[in-house]
Amino acid sequence: MEDQKIIGVDLGGTSIKFAILTMEGEIQQRWSQQTNILDEGSHIIPDIIESINHHLALYDMKPEQFAGIGMGTPGSVDRHNGTVIGAFNLNWKQLVYPKRDIEAGTHIPFYIDNDANVAALGERWEGAGDNQDDVTFVTLGTGIGGGIIADGRLLHGVSGSAGEIGHVTIDPNGYLCTCGKHGCLETVASATGVVRVARDMAEEYAGDAKLKVMLDDGEEISSKIVFDLAKEGDQLATAVVDRVSNYLGLALANIGNTLNPAFIVIGGGVSAAGDFLLDKTRKTFEANVFPNVRENTKLRLATLGNEAGVIGAASLVLENNKD
Amino acid sequence: MEDQKIIGVDLGGTSIKFAILTMEGEIQQRWSQQTNILDEGSHIIPDIIESINHHLALYDMKPEQFAGIGMGTPGSVDRHNGTVIGAFNLNWKQLVYPKRDIEAGTHIPFYIDNDANVAALGERWEGAGDNQDDVTFVTLGTGIGGGIIADGRLLHGVSGSAGEIGHVTIDPNGYLCTCGKHGCLETVASATGVVRVARDMAEEYAGDAKLKVMLDDGEEISSKIVFDLAKEGDQLATAVVDRVSNYLGLALANIGNTLNPAFIVIGGGVSAAGDFLLDKTRKTFEANVFPNVRENTKLRLATLGNEAGVIGAASLVLENNKD
Repeated sequence: MEDQKIIGVDLGGTSIKFAILTMEGEIQQRWSQQTNILDEGSHIIPDIIESINHHLALYDMKPEQFAGIGMGTPGSVDRHNGTVIGAFNLNWKQLVYPKRDIEAGTHIPFYIDNDANVAALGERWEGAGDNQDDVTFVTLGTGIGGGIIADGRLLHGVSGSAGEIGHVTIDPNGYLCTCGKHGCLETVASATGVVRVARDMAEEYAGDAKLKVMLDDGEEISSKIVFDLAKEGDQLATAVVDRVSNYLGLALANIGNTLNPAFIVIGGGVSAAGDFLLDKTRKTFEANVFPNVRENTKLRLATLGNEAGVIGAASLVLENNKD
Repeated sequence: MEDQKIIGVDLGGTSIKFAILTMEGEIQQRWSQQTNILDEGSHIIPDIIESINHHLALYDMKPEQFAGIGMGTPGSVDRHNGTVIGAFNLNWKQLVYPKRDIEAGTHIPFYIDNDANVAALGERWEGAGDNQDDVTFVTLGTGIGGGIIADGRLLHGVSGSAGEIGHVTIDPNGYLCTCGKHGCLETVASATGVVRVARDMAEEYAGDAKLKVMLDDGEEISSKIVFDLAKEGDQLATAVVDRVSNYLGLALANIGNTLNPAFIVIGGGVSAAGDFLLDKTRKTFEANVFPNVRENTKLRLATLGNEAGVIGAASLVLENNKD
């Protein structure tokens, strides 16, 4: 039992990443392949099965040597039944049965959860979360996702929506979100949100900041450009980043006040802005948490990058063998 | 083992409530006594020991018949060491050792947590929480407390502050709170907060609402008076209640978006306003949660009243025998 290994699978719209890990979270083998989303994504699960079986043969390993396969996926996950629906970047519009099919195809127990929860487990286990019992993870990408580990357990809530930090309301009169309500954190602090804030603030801005000129010239801007300009001291870009980090700091402060985790870990593409974003966010965070939280709950940048997915997916196996 | 009983103790500044319960949460005996806070509260623990021993003798029961004693207390609790500090309404300014002393005095295992967490456990077990795995409890009293049960476990966070819902920031530029920061939910939605909002809104109010007249006449008002006047249609009181329930609804919405509990249970003195408060709060809540939470996370009024304390305290024994 203690020599058993785990397989982690990080399923995304572009690639599928695989890793074989020890029970202690050390990656021993890793590989990846492109995601074939043709034919309503019907090749994806057979491809995963074939890839796992092929690599086990290659490494001369048997299914009995594995405690399980864990997988992170986009879409709505029913983790008890091991099904997924509505993963649009995989072309999975209808119900798909990863657990049933992958267990049948590999003879290894299979566990599944959504990609943000899995990344949270990864950062908690081997990344910035220091394997603490209380870690909240927020990923600032095209959208905003999150995952909460509390008292050592990944939270799901009554209907699977625990950790949906992107939909925390930071301004009831704010922008309309894709979810149908107004003022979600995602509308202002995701990669697309940062650009939206920049466009809006540019309209009211009268100076000659480079960001203003770029927007007026109709140039394509990204959150990275906004942060880079702010780092150079661009006045408008600085105001945008200040506003974004204010919103983010307030949302994270209330997670701190509610959950008092050891760490709130910030990952995803926007977090590439690094300490520049972190320091500004921390300022608002600290102003809005009460003293015990200010002393004990810390903001950190994610450290695993792309590997959070496979590592966290693998840890699903441990998570599910707890009770 | 299955015939064992539990003792629940609800320690407050005015009275100490006791109950003997079955392992299923049914109260079989109950009694109470006044809290003697003289001499720096040094009589409290001896009184508890004597009262328990006296009643066990009265009912002809032995320590071995009990799985444990659970107690809820004000102040800062170190639940691992079973100590309390800073319970000012008990005159416990220095470190006190309830676990050490009560175990020595009764020969029954002892568990302790703070009163808001214990009330949360009680409402979850036998009250409005329907024994669900995910229940958040908020108590609107002189201050605002809270407790969170997630994935079946009471959350504490890294330094014991999980569930401090009273210090969620609802307005970074709001009133100064006793905790030192601004705009805590407690500053506007506790009993004292409601009165504060009423006084402030009265200053700007030009009409002749009864609440305005009372305040101008220097009459003592309470949150109950504000709610009662609002129910009668008083224009100023209605505006006050609308503002308070807006703040409360937004704070609870973000707990919903973060934790997706089955129920958010509202208790404490202010919740005596009942459905009048609940309906208004729900309106803001539903506007600020995303669809899956709107469908699956429900606001409810607490149902146990004063008994939440002893029942929840008793359930600490079960909670601590889980792992």
